Formats: sequence, C-alpha cells, structure tokens
Amino acid sequence: MDSRRVEALADGIFAIAMTLLVLELHVPMLAATASSGAVASALVHDWAKFATYGGSFFILGVLWIGHHNQFHYIRRADRPFLWINIFYLLCVGFVPYCTALLGTFMWNRTAVVVYGVVLIMTGLTLHWEWVYAAGHGLLGEEATPPVVRAAGHRVLYGLAAYAVAVAIAFVSTPACLALYVLIPLLYLRPSAIDQHLRRGRPPGPNA
Amino acid sequence: MDSRRVEALADGIFAIAMTLLVLELHVPMLAATASSGAVASALVHDWAKFATYGGSFFILGVLWIGHHNQFHYIRRADRPFLWINIFYLLCVGFVPYCTALLGTFMWNRTAVVVYGVVLIMTGLTLHWEWVYAAGHGLLGEEATPPVVRAAGHRVLYGLAAYAVAVAIAFVSTPACLALYVLIPLLYLRPSAIDQHLRRGRPPGPNA
Amino acid sequence: MDSRRVEALADGIFAIAMTLLVLELHVPMLAATASSGAVASALVHDWAKFATYGGSFFILGVLWIGHHNQFHYIRRADRPFLWINIFYLLCVGFVPYCTALLGTFMWNRTAVVVYGVVLIMTGLTLHWEWVYAAGHGLLGEEATPPVVRAAGHRVLYGLAAYAVAVAIAFVSTPACLALYVLIPLLYLRPSAIDQHLRRGRPPGPNA
Amino acid sequence: MDSRRVEALADGIFAIAMTLLVLELHVPMLAATASSGAVASALVHDWAKFATYGGSFFILGVLWIGHHNQFHYIRRADRPFLWINIFYLLCVGFVPYCTALLGTFMWNRTAVVVYGVVLIMTGLTLHWEWVYAAGHGLLGEEATPPVVRAAGHRVLYGLAAYAVAVAIAFVSTPACLALYVLIPLLYLRPSAIDQHLRRGRPPGPNA
Repeated sequence: MDSRRVEALADGIFAIAMTLLVLELHVPMLAATASSGAVASALVHDWAKFATYGGSFFILGVLWIGHHNQFHYIRRADRPFLWINIFYLLCVGFVPYCTALLGTFMWNRTAVVVYGVVLIMTGLTLHWEWVYAAGHGLLGEEATPPVVRAAGHRVLYGLAAYAVAVAIAFVSTPACLALYVLIPLLYLRPSAIDQHLRRGRPPGPNA
Repeated sequence: MDSRRVEALADGIFAIAMTLLVLELHVPMLAATASSGAVASALVHDWAKFATYGGSFFILGVLWIGHHNQFHYIRRADRPFLWINIFYLLCVGFVPYCTALLGTFMWNRTAVVVYGVVLIMTGLTLHWEWVYAAGHGLLGEEATPPVVRAAGHRVLYGLAAYAVAVAIAFVSTPACLALYVLIPLLYLRPSAIDQHLRRGRPPGPNA
Repeated sequence: MDSRRVEALADGIFAIAMTLLVLELHVPMLAATASSGAVASALVHDWAKFATYGGSFFILGVLWIGHHNQFHYIRRADRPFLWINIFYLLCVGFVPYCTALLGTFMWNRTAVVVYGVVLIMTGLTLHWEWVYAAGHGLLGEEATPPVVRAAGHRVLYGLAAYAVAVAIAFVSTPACLALYVLIPLLYLRPSAIDQHLRRGRPPGPNA
Repeated sequence: MDSRRVEALADGIFAIAMTLLVLELHVPMLAATASSGAVASALVHDWAKFATYGGSFFILGVLWIGHHNQFHYIRRADRPFLWINIFYLLCVGFVPYCTALLGTFMWNRTAVVVYGVVLIMTGLTLHWEWVYAAGHGLLGEEATPPVVRAAGHRVLYGLAAYAVAVAIAFVSTPACLALYVLIPLLYLRPSAIDQHLRRGRPPGPNA
C-alpha cells in the first residue's frame, strides 16, 4: 500500500475541518433594515468567535504542515499505520467543535481545558504516527536518524507547551488563553528539517 | 477510463462524511456566563453524541480502508462499476444522518436498526463492487484468485456480524449496541491481504 | 495549463455537493424517550426528503460521470474553458438547494420547475464546455469526430428529456416527477463512447 | 518539499468554500401545502441571497484561477511560503461568512465594506505569496521576469479596483455594489500570461 491515498484523505479532512470553522460564525440576528452602526457593533460583540476562527485555522495549519512534513518521508502504509492516522484525523475533525465551544464560552475553564486536551491528543497521535512509521520501515531512505529525531522533538515541544497551558488554566484562564495564542507562533520559525532540506535544495532560477 | 478519479471522488466523500459528523455536536445552550461546572455537566450529558461521533468516524475509517484496499488492485472502471461505486458512496454519505439519529435516540430500537441496516447496505455494495470488478477484468494482475477470495470474505464477515447485531436488536437494544462497538475492532487485526502484501514488501531502511 | 487541477476542483465540488445533501435530512423533533414506533413513523413521514436525497445523489452521479468522461479526452485548459467550468460547478453547487426545496414542497409546481430548470442549465453548461473544448484544441488525439459527436448527443438527449418534463409540470406535477425518476435511468445503459473505449481495451486478467 | 500537497489543500478549501455558500440559502418557511405562487414569491423575495451566492462563487472562481495560475510556475514550498498560503486560505474560508452577511444586509454599509475588505486582504495575500515565491527561488525556469511582473500586476489591478469600490461605499452603497458586480468581469479577458502560454502551446488536433 502506498501512502498517496492516505494523504488525499488527510488533505480532504484538513480542508473541510478548516472550512467548517466558518459555519460557527453566525450573521447577527438583526432586522434587514438595521443601521450600519448596529451591524458593526454586533460584529464587534462577536469578536471571540472571529478570534477563535483565526486561531483554530492557524492551529489546523500547524498540524497540517506537521502531517505534510511527515509524509514527505513516509513511503508506505500498513494497517496499524492507517488506524493511527484515522485516529489522528478523528482528533482533527473534532477541532471545529472545540472551537465553537471556546468561541461561545471564552473565559470558561471547561471550554479552555477541552480545547487544550483535544490539541494534546492530536499532537500525541501525530507523534505516535511518526514513531510507528520510523520503527516499522515505512519511511524513505532520506529519513536519516537525525531527521527522525528532530521531527519527533518538534512535535513533543508543542505538546509540552500545551500541557503547561492546560495546567495553568486551573489557576488563570486568561493566562492559558494567552499561551494558546503564543504557542502556534513558535512553529513559524524554521525547523531542523527545513534547514536539512534547504541545504539539499538546488538554488532556484529566481533566487 | 482509469480508476484515479473514482478514487478522488471517493476520498472526497469519505473525508466530508467523516468531517460532517462533527456538525451534529452542538455547543450547550447555556448563557455565555455559565460556570465551568455547568458547561462540564452539559458536555457529560451529551455523551451519546460524542460516542456516536467517535464510533461512526471509526466505522467510516473501516469502510475507507476497505475501499482503499480494493482500489489497490482496481485498474480500470467501466460504466456499471461507476454506478455501483456511486451507490456505495450514497450509502457512505448517509452515515452522518444515521449517526445523528442514533446520537439523539440512543436506546431506541428504530434508530439502532436503521444504523445497522445502512451499514449492511454499505457493506453489501462494497462486496458487489469487488465481485463485479473481479468478474469484468478491472483488476490488475497481482489480484490472484486467493487475494480476490480473501478480500471478498473479509467484507462478508463484517456483514454477517452486523446482520446478527440487527437481529439481536429486536431482543435487546443494548446488546446490539455492544456488538456495534465490538465489530469494528475485528478489523484492527491484519487481514490475509496485509500478510500477502507484507511478504512482497522490501524491508524498509528504518526497520 | 494542464487539466489536472480543474479535475481536482470539480471532484471536490461534486463530492461536497453530494455529501451536503444529507444536511437537509433532519432528525425527527421528538423527545429522547420517544417510542421506537413514534421514531419509525416520523421517519416514514419524511419519505420525500429521503427520496430527493437518493434522487439528487444519483443525478449528481450522472453529471459527475459525464464530466469524468469529458475529462478523459480533455488535455489542456484555457481561460474561457476555466470560466465555463466554474459556471458548471456553480450549477452543481446549487443542486443541494433545489433538492431541499423539492424535499420540502414535493408536489409544488414552483419547486418542481426550479429543480428541472437548474438541471437543464447544468446540462447546457456541460454541453457548452464540450463544444468549446472540441473547437479550441483542448482535446487529446483519441477524441475523433465520431467520439466528439456521440458525447455531445448524449448530453443533449438528457437536456431534451428534462425540458419535456418541465413542460409537463405545467399540466401535471406528478407526471413531471415520474419523468425525473426515469430520466437518470437512461444513463445506466452503456454509451457510444463506452463501446468505443471497450473495443480499445486490452482484455483484463480476471475477465 | 514539493508543491503538490499545497495545491491539494488549496483545491479542497476552494471547493468547500464554494459549496458551503449554498448553505446560506434557506428553503422558504412556508407550510408544505403552500401554493406554487406563494413559493415563487418567497424565492423572488430572497433574490439578494441568490445574487450573492452567484457573485461569491464567481469571485472564488477568480481567486482559484489566480492561485491555479501561480502554481503553474511554483515548484517548491518552504515553511514561510506554507504560512502565507495558510493565511491566504484563511481569507478564502472566510468568504462564505461575508457572503451571508451581505446576502442578509444587502444595502448596509458595514456588510458592504466588510465584504470588500476581506477580498482586498485575500488579494494582498495572493500577491504576497507570488512575490515571496519569485524572490526565494520557488518558481520553475519558465517563470521569466516578464511573466513574474505580468502575473503580479494582474492581482494588483483587482486590488486597486476593490479599494476604490470600498472608498465609494462611504458615499454610496449601491455604487460600490455595482463595482463589485463589474470587477470580476475584468478577469474574463485573457491575461498577458495566457497570451504567453498560448504562443508556446502546440496546436490541438481539433483546433
């Protein structure tokens, strides 16, 4: 079994989960003749929903890039791998619900903790998938041991950060939310794998 | 006609059906200022919805892996094959509705039976597709008669199990639900085809 | 520009339009403790919704197979072709709405006529796309003039049938609905193109 | 990292955003026994929703063609490129919400301005992506400097047009809406890139 269709299913589920986030944004319940000021203030009042839309879209983006990077090396799929991947996608597909929960109950500890726990489970599954693929010969030859280690660590750092954030939620919900905003930014910096890839890349014609 | 676009449509419909399951999960109808305990107990109260989300996601995963395995061998598509496949996808697309029905009426015989009957129809169509492909020269050369038989039997075992579960529903709904939980687990064990494939696979570099 | 990504977008929109049909099916509004007989009769009462789900899924299947068959020959895409294709997909994306309208107002002339007119517009655009591709060198070499003519006629026959059905709706809505049920069945028989392809196909190993 | 999966995610999100537009169209709230005249006039009453469905579908079509044209030249993806692309897709995924807002509050300045601002942000991100790809060696060799310039300008013209339309909204909402209708039509004419491509294309067999 080659890994092409697994990628197709994953890309589909990511694309849909990211796009379904918008269904949680509701048009203000005002008369069609409402003034432009009334519509504007209704939109401003819904700021938490817009913020969670943007935040969850970016987090799903981080997760998709992580998955994309793993599949750069994954060549084959066996049955346990497919199952781990389906459990991963189950977590991804659940993100729109956590997002709606957080957008509705922004400062509520339960909503904040559920959101973090789902992200931790998603990351754990992504890490499990990688460890399994490395241990069962599903990777291509260019996945040298340093690449395997670096990619694994990158996922674990994020997991640790979310675990700290969830622990902090029991002391202060706003502090936890602030961490939720900051953690995805960590993934903007280039990773060890990027540097590995960049060294191997021929200089482009427009560079 | 080659079978690539049929796979693309199928992957799309599986991805969407799996992700639409989440739209049946509704955020608790509480004031935005509800306590974290109130939100937590509202979530616990909705456990049946979460359980059916997880269960149906896994069952769609089983069906997708089954379809994926068939298309490992399918090379060509003719018009009757396309029609059988569309009927299969119609059944797959109906799973989110059955899931919503079961999540709302958990212990209700009608909901339980409808869920099982739709799964049986889906499995029957998957089996029909395989028998048709084998009988009309749509498979590649590596689909030897033992592979064709083993793959067909694997689908039939599941069908028989769901038929038993539906029959039991008329005696005891909880017993039928317990079977629904157990049947997908049968598909976690490696199949005859996996073993066939594994023998042919070159040992991976990280193995 | 090659035609691969146009197919990817089309497959995505078909997959989603087919799967969104299920969102029009609503779980009966009964208490969670309703008897299984009450749930069963509520489901039977909604038969029109289930029938339009099945019917529209099959019609989208016919349209997808038609698009699939055209793209078997289409090799390139230019800008006007992309626009015609987007208008085609706009019509396809509108089918779930017409389906919901017809499922709600089954015997209503307006709902019946809107449904038919949208299908006629969809078919006209599919035909336009084909004529444009043939006239602007976007097809591969195996699209000989007889293939081009046969594929064009197959679309026109369906269009003519739906036009007759819509005209009949002004006399009798049920007669029009009966035609809506029968027309897709015409597309089950093999087409001139199938026969052309079958002649060129090497006999399969399992044939 | 090659650019194939980035395209797959983008095609998925475009396909879903285009198809989700239809979920904002609601079946008239009338009794199932309503006369065909009553249903017809309810549909006519909702004309703004249908118009914004069509308009947004076409605008997403323009954006998809723009993205499609860029990826004709893009060969590789690095991490910042992936992030720009995710921000682009976040904007695309937000279009169904702006469309629902505009369909509900058609003549309302806030709705009109939000719609235009989101389109401007989307276009800016598309332009940014192109400039980044050109400056970091992610393009193929056939992206000569004139092609890079022409493609960049084509995006900027649209941005300038939407910026003018939004400015006009503060004087006259209907004038701004008229511009929104006209701007996508500009993209129907062939671009400098099309002419470049056409010159290089071998004459097709049916031309």
